[in-house]
Amino acid sequence: MRRLEIIGVEGLGEIGSGDPLGRLVVEACERQGVTLRDGDVLVLAQKVVSKSEGRAVDLHTVTPSAEASRLSAELDGKDPRLLELILRESRRIVAKGRSTIVVETHHGFVCANAGIDLSNIGTGRALLLPADPDGSARRIRDEAQRLTATALGVVITDTFGRPWRLGTTDVAIGVAGFAPLIDYRGQTDPYGYELKASVTAVADQIAGAAELVMGKTSHVPAAIVRGCELPQHDGSAQELVRPAADDLFRGGR
Amino acid sequence: MRRLEIIGVEGLGEIGSGDPLGRLVVEACERQGVTLRDGDVLVLAQKVVSKSEGRAVDLHTVTPSAEASRLSAELDGKDPRLLELILRESRRIVAKGRSTIVVETHHGFVCANAGIDLSNIGTGRALLLPADPDGSARRIRDEAQRLTATALGVVITDTFGRPWRLGTTDVAIGVAGFAPLIDYRGQTDPYGYELKASVTAVADQIAGAAELVMGKTSHVPAAIVRGCELPQHDGSAQELVRPAADDLFRGGR
Repeated sequence: MRRLEIIGVEGLGEIGSGDPLGRLVVEACERQGVTLRDGDVLVLAQKVVSKSEGRAVDLHTVTPSAEASRLSAELDGKDPRLLELILRESRRIVAKGRSTIVVETHHGFVCANAGIDLSNIGTGRALLLPADPDGSARRIRDEAQRLTATALGVVITDTFGRPWRLGTTDVAIGVAGFAPLIDYRGQTDPYGYELKASVTAVADQIAGAAELVMGKTSHVPAAIVRGCELPQHDGSAQELVRPAADDLFRGGR
Repeated sequence: MRRLEIIGVEGLGEIGSGDPLGRLVVEACERQGVTLRDGDVLVLAQKVVSKSEGRAVDLHTVTPSAEASRLSAELDGKDPRLLELILRESRRIVAKGRSTIVVETHHGFVCANAGIDLSNIGTGRALLLPADPDGSARRIRDEAQRLTATALGVVITDTFGRPWRLGTTDVAIGVAGFAPLIDYRGQTDPYGYELKASVTAVADQIAGAAELVMGKTSHVPAAIVRGCELPQHDGSAQELVRPAADDLFRGGR
């Protein structure tokens, strides 16, 4: 019987810049009586990773550029300091709504506001995505593996909207220790039909599954996903970024 | 400690038109020694639902229209009979690639090939999405609840690609028994900041989580997701369809 378990990790406390997140998560698991096992995937919300990496910005220190001020007028008075940060964190603007801006970040992720968050960080402050979320995932994995002597996967999640469908889902912005895509192409179904377009974004499904226990307001910033049976592999979330040439919905300018 | 469990349901056997899917899933659970509980979400792959509803089509019986033949020439010789079925199942074409066609189905879902599948159905046959997946979910729920005297949720899943990100994730095309969106708007974070854009597509995350045990070739066409703690509600997957006026990536013609 195939069975998967997702265990919320609580009691991490408020994370500050420089905090050793890998160790803190391992210790929080121990306090819960949860022993990490080979093959467990440790999932962390981007917020705690960004906080531990000092990615919080005091909006009062941000001077909007002319482009940010122009965008603010266009986007219903959206905070020009936030827009300045969004522009700094982006390669290009993909789309604009009434007060919404969707960009491609320097990592290649397409999301609203370059993933910059104003919630759960304190008034007048903004929290940027990690500069290198795959690197963050690798560091957290190294530390957690060293302390527990297990072979782990790590996923760093963020909450993205989607075209065509309402509501957000959590996706993987950082991955370490396994391949984020499972490629079934070339395999055949029970009728002998060759599977042609079957590549599963397993890391994104793990991210969304973990959100089911992490939630948005429940103080559960991490989770363990157990039972995925993914082989150890030197994977990264960069593999999830669709190349421009292969993208029917590139948009933008 | 928040904990979620996902249990694969096997041994459903080959599903044929008219088979009572709700009863078959309940019986398969019993054979596995799994007793359904209040609050469990029963997840079923679209394929078994479509098969039980007689949505398989013999491609030899399909005569392509002029438009389907024209599209076939445009799309690298893609089977004009398949294109004919795609056009019949669609409201409009959203985008075309070299041999790819993305449409909006009559349900309002935006996906490749109108969700029509050639795998796991036998050579020369195609499998359409259920005509009314929310209705299918309600019927399966009614039957399973009647047999088990429990309050269940039901999700019917399909595998969709996404813009900007490689790989597919499973999403909900049919929902019964709970609200597919969790709306956090108006709630405040621990700092008192009001959450503004936080609506979570919990049904899609449940679909993706279930795929982690159902897989693509593993003969696990159903799963139980246990521990979501979703209140009983008369929800539907139609609530997940983003209204055109609210869509920055409508595309198409």
